[in-house]
Amino acid sequence: MSWEKSVRRVTPYVPGEQPKDKNIIKLNTNECPYPPAPKVRELISGLRYEDMRLYPDPEASSLIKALSGYYNVPEDQIFVGVGSDDVLSMAYLTFFNSDNPILFPDITYSFYDVWAELYKVPYKKIPLRDDFTIDFTEYYGDKQPNGGIIIANPNAPVGIYEPVSKIEDVVAHNPDSVCIIDEAYIDFGGESALPLIKKYDNVLIVQTFSKSRAMAGMRIGYAFGSKKLIKYMQDAKFSFNSYTMNRPSLELGIAAIEDDVYFKETCNKIIATRERVKKELSALGFTFPDSKANFIFAKHDKLTGEELFLALKNAGIYVRHWNADRIYDYLRITIGTDEEMDKLISFLQKYL
Amino acid sequence: MSWEKSVRRVTPYVPGEQPKDKNIIKLNTNECPYPPAPKVRELISGLRYEDMRLYPDPEASSLIKALSGYYNVPEDQIFVGVGSDDVLSMAYLTFFNSDNPILFPDITYSFYDVWAELYKVPYKKIPLRDDFTIDFTEYYGDKQPNGGIIIANPNAPVGIYEPVSKIEDVVAHNPDSVCIIDEAYIDFGGESALPLIKKYDNVLIVQTFSKSRAMAGMRIGYAFGSKKLIKYMQDAKFSFNSYTMNRPSLELGIAAIEDDVYFKETCNKIIATRERVKKELSALGFTFPDSKANFIFAKHDKLTGEELFLALKNAGIYVRHWNADRIYDYLRITIGTDEEMDKLISFLQKYL
Repeated sequence: MSWEKSVRRVTPYVPGEQPKDKNIIKLNTNECPYPPAPKVRELISGLRYEDMRLYPDPEASSLIKALSGYYNVPEDQIFVGVGSDDVLSMAYLTFFNSDNPILFPDITYSFYDVWAELYKVPYKKIPLRDDFTIDFTEYYGDKQPNGGIIIANPNAPVGIYEPVSKIEDVVAHNPDSVCIIDEAYIDFGGESALPLIKKYDNVLIVQTFSKSRAMAGMRIGYAFGSKKLIKYMQDAKFSFNSYTMNRPSLELGIAAIEDDVYFKETCNKIIATRERVKKELSALGFTFPDSKANFIFAKHDKLTGEELFLALKNAGIYVRHWNADRIYDYLRITIGTDEEMDKLISFLQKYL
Repeated sequence: MSWEKSVRRVTPYVPGEQPKDKNIIKLNTNECPYPPAPKVRELISGLRYEDMRLYPDPEASSLIKALSGYYNVPEDQIFVGVGSDDVLSMAYLTFFNSDNPILFPDITYSFYDVWAELYKVPYKKIPLRDDFTIDFTEYYGDKQPNGGIIIANPNAPVGIYEPVSKIEDVVAHNPDSVCIIDEAYIDFGGESALPLIKKYDNVLIVQTFSKSRAMAGMRIGYAFGSKKLIKYMQDAKFSFNSYTMNRPSLELGIAAIEDDVYFKETCNKIIATRERVKKELSALGFTFPDSKANFIFAKHDKLTGEELFLALKNAGIYVRHWNADRIYDYLRITIGTDEEMDKLISFLQKYL
């Protein structure tokens, strides 16, 4: 069985649990507690059975056009994929081919080192400061020669948002690297670094329909960048799979972009819930970095993260916990509906 | 702009044209001329809008269970992906990591060298015989040390089907390599090499919903192999994107598997049309290898492939033509409905 010698061996990313029991209060994977834009419901019945036999548009033009109109970015500066994970993975494959290590924080989205391992990209983790903020000077290319940068803003799982000026600082200090800014959580109070793509050709801004647009089940992610950057990614994508986006995702995705009123209402509801839950958690003895995402990364002053995680799980409330250095005392709690958060808080009140 | 030094540069695969004009007779991308199983139509209206906010099942268990039941293969020996292109690409990334070249025919699915270029896998093309059949002895590992084998059966675009005994011969002669058998067109008259997975742990059988199951628009492909082989692919997939299959593909895919009567009827209709078109093309002076796929790879004894391709295109009939060595006189003509093929034949009668 020596064929195994040529196998790429990786330790795969373990996604948050997806329990099939509908009674679980699911605050573990940062999904949106509200459904997608109402127009999606109408469009589902409009999905044409007869057309399913045909390949989807490989250029995903309709969806790209909708994104172009909404974000006011030319169509040839937009890339779409099967969730932002697909977009980010393609960006790794396309841009991270240097012998120098790519750089990202020690505490961040767990996929960043998984992709590096998968594609055999050398990498170096830069420790967050003790308060979980990013020391951007540690990412300067002249100080730290690198093969690329990837930073989530707001950073996950800590939730801290960094102003665009700091992102620009990193991009400007890395003319020899592609800088990926993963803005999965940007719609919950942050300001996007999107305008930077006009000034810098080496910055890629990645966003997703899975959080603020309530479409995790549809798998749609997208990226903005210079024309050149996007062309390189398209070439890689067309060398991987010409037809990544299926017909339902192309058709339903547009509806989620078009209803801006609903989108902003949903984000504002989540932000309001987050802010009042922050107060309630503080009152219960939790501390947390100030989150601008749809989750709170909290630890209790008396109890370990693992104990709380298990107690909540037994009560049918799923949150996320990592057995990892520096963060094992923390829980990442997704912001659900007000009713869900009430149940969380009242459980914690009793338990503590 | 020295970031461009680290960019992976590839010449992307160019898919067949996807014209938006509905009046085109589209015989260029091997889609099924009939719609998917009628139950798919019912299930579309059953897609739950409220659930779209939630991630799909990362294990794709419902779809894998349906495939397991239909093909009588244990669930842990099945892999699913976003079309067979995604499945094959993941198989390249997982299994083709040797310094020895992988082997495939010089005339075959055009993606095989594209993936090799994308992932920097060394490769060697083995010429088909003059009659476009495969000389399997050229693939023996003891004669030709290799890092893997990929063979389409029936082979595209020529359409020739090779018996399972020959496939087994190659697999048995390559204990040190993973052998991928791409059976995208197996349901149109061939016999699958699927039973080989019980006897050999190094063979991967790949199939798709895009042709015989009339679901090109849904992007569903799958593979069968030893438990070990599938586990390695799952690890790579979970390191790339945990949630590749969106909710509609998981839910609608099952319906396409369940209706076996409709499936067999559809395949038989396409086979019957193919066989009568063969006779009509012969009568018009065309020659072609004997196809067991849903297309015919034909050349005319008087006219060049390019001339015919353009004449047909002007008449609103799209077929596929490659400006490539050995095959530039050929057209690959997808089997459409009987009415579509009548129009093709009557155009050719007039034109010739």
